[in-house]
Amino acid sequence: MTCPPQIGGVLEAALYAEDLAAAESFYGGLMGMKVVLRLLPRHVFFRAGQTVLLVFNPCETARPSGNPDLPVPAHGARGPGHVCFAATRDEIAAWRQVFRDAGVALDAEFDWPNGARSLYVRDPAGNSVEFAERRLWF
Amino acid sequence: MTCPPQIGGVLEAALYAEDLAAAESFYGGLMGMKVVLRLLPRHVFFRAGQTVLLVFNPCETARPSGNPDLPVPAHGARGPGHVCFAATRDEIAAWRQVFRDAGVALDAEFDWPNGARSLYVRDPAGNSVEFAERRLWF
Repeated sequence: MTCPPQIGGVLEAALYAEDLAAAESFYGGLMGMKVVLRLLPRHVFFRAGQTVLLVFNPCETARPSGNPDLPVPAHGARGPGHVCFAATRDEIAAWRQVFRDAGVALDAEFDWPNGARSLYVRDPAGNSVEFAERRLWF
Repeated sequence: MTCPPQIGGVLEAALYAEDLAAAESFYGGLMGMKVVLRLLPRHVFFRAGQTVLLVFNPCETARPSGNPDLPVPAHGARGPGHVCFAATRDEIAAWRQVFRDAGVALDAEFDWPNGARSLYVRDPAGNSVEFAERRLWF
């Protein structure tokens, strides 16, 4: 038996959106995230600190890879997913203003029982996007 | 206009699984990840370094929160999602053996054009779980 290594952390979180232009306008435009890879109509990937947010078009990723050198397994979910970005309390206040200025409705904003704050909005595909203080978990 | 803050990184990545016991057996048992929160039948959360993997039962999270103090927005996707954990090349070799020992089929293993290695398996819900070297992106 081989012991499992210690997990180094999430490197990529994935969301799904059929309209990748709208996703890029939201994550890359409004939120200011740097696009690290764009391959339309399949995906747009965004840098998030030392992690990457992958936004996939499930119509494309549900098909098997046609490339024998890069046999990326098929996947693709439907319906609203979820991701949470780390943010300080001050940054959460700034995000609130960024979304208000852009006319993006806030889904919720509250303090968890341990005092950590979370703010939630929806991306154009309906995914639930959260900003939370790291002390929610650490 | 408020400028968007710099994103601190992904804090939580989410997957969906109706059978949370099977999910816990995979992530908590086979993969050795520490459970940080378990609220059945809604969710099981696992620590992944300085990030958290959230596994939600979409049958439960698609309903609105009934708690006015914690108005967590509804979400819930169906079909195979994706997550990627950071791992060194040696750790990827160890993961290969962990899954082989457990009879979990490998979906794929290859080097990307920049030389970074990836290994893919499926969790019991069919989500595509990847282990990749950080230099894939950074």
